[in-house]
Amino acid sequence: MTNFNKAIVLVSGGLDSTTTLAIAKDLGFDCYALSFNYGQRHISELDAAKKVANSFNVKDHKIISLDMGQIGGSALTDSTIDVPDAPSEGIPITYVPARNTIFLSYALAWAEVLNANDIFIGVNAVDYSGYPDCRPEYIKAYEQLASLATKAGVEGSPFKVHTPLIELSKKDIIKKGSSLNVDYALTVSCYQADDEGQACGVCDSCRFRKEGFKTANLADPTHYQ
Amino acid sequence: MTNFNKAIVLVSGGLDSTTTLAIAKDLGFDCYALSFNYGQRHISELDAAKKVANSFNVKDHKIISLDMGQIGGSALTDSTIDVPDAPSEGIPITYVPARNTIFLSYALAWAEVLNANDIFIGVNAVDYSGYPDCRPEYIKAYEQLASLATKAGVEGSPFKVHTPLIELSKKDIIKKGSSLNVDYALTVSCYQADDEGQACGVCDSCRFRKEGFKTANLADPTHYQ
Repeated sequence: MTNFNKAIVLVSGGLDSTTTLAIAKDLGFDCYALSFNYGQRHISELDAAKKVANSFNVKDHKIISLDMGQIGGSALTDSTIDVPDAPSEGIPITYVPARNTIFLSYALAWAEVLNANDIFIGVNAVDYSGYPDCRPEYIKAYEQLASLATKAGVEGSPFKVHTPLIELSKKDIIKKGSSLNVDYALTVSCYQADDEGQACGVCDSCRFRKEGFKTANLADPTHYQ
Repeated sequence: MTNFNKAIVLVSGGLDSTTTLAIAKDLGFDCYALSFNYGQRHISELDAAKKVANSFNVKDHKIISLDMGQIGGSALTDSTIDVPDAPSEGIPITYVPARNTIFLSYALAWAEVLNANDIFIGVNAVDYSGYPDCRPEYIKAYEQLASLATKAGVEGSPFKVHTPLIELSKKDIIKKGSSLNVDYALTVSCYQADDEGQACGVCDSCRFRKEGFKTANLADPTHYQ
């Protein structure tokens, strides 16, 4: 028996996923937050994820350890590759191979156990157009896969992967979150934040975030180094 | 630049995946073996995977630790659920939620890093018809997802998920492997093998395997408890 009130929400502790959690909550879902410790350089992101999950009174919050360092291939998980401090062209070096595919697969596993049919992920095709796994056609393909991969699918209940931010600009994401009373001071977006969660202010992620608050005409509560 | 000679092969240490590795090797691929430590009850399966990978001179063998115990929901990863010793109806309790989806996602990540476009998985739709993620339509959906999820896909190189066993009976799998000189004494299929890799002889997996050797008219080299 599928429970249409439960949703798995991928929560990284960043601005986008936090806004996504606020939206899922606002839609009336009982939210189950899922985070990953995948060898990202800054553990402060996970601290932010815990604070965010608590602030939204999620039903449960799991942090899954992923063994991504062995796979390598990204500046975010491989300490031998530098994070760039200038805009990059094409697919950025901060792209982690198959990351969203792995994240969604764990979400799918938990959804099966909970008899949930809804997954929320804060992907964005505007700012992250260089990431193949942030595109609408990718999400559509994942829904099809999920519906074939699972007991629920066999029994005829299709999965829904919700991507409420996919077509929003950073400005509109911040305006949406602010209207839902998100406390962005809790969130960490920086690719190379320090242990206290203070942001570098110069990486791609920091630049998008800064510009977002500016164009939204809202005070930027980010703690910079 | 995609390398059409490299393939990721999922190797559990069981009879099916070992036969799959033999087939990939026979097709001329440089094989990269991928195994998972996912909280399965018997660690002897991973010992078998190492022996199998060595016996086929793979280019590399990675064993990725998965945090599946937190997700639960299966007799194979949850010690509070018993492994049944009688045939089960519908989707078996030994089904691990989204397991193949998670396995294939790591394979995809490694394939991206290696610039490989071929993944081999020993799924079988005959004996394991109760597992939704062993069906041809599931594999097809995964190929579509993989081609959209990755840099290679963006650049127009579709992924191929090879399932050479998908329509074979256990008998035919064993005959195929024997013709390729697979040493099945190295492999462990049992859901509750002991630390030395000795099989229980009564679980679903043991029953399929036993019957396979019998109908193939080949000596069963399995070490039983």
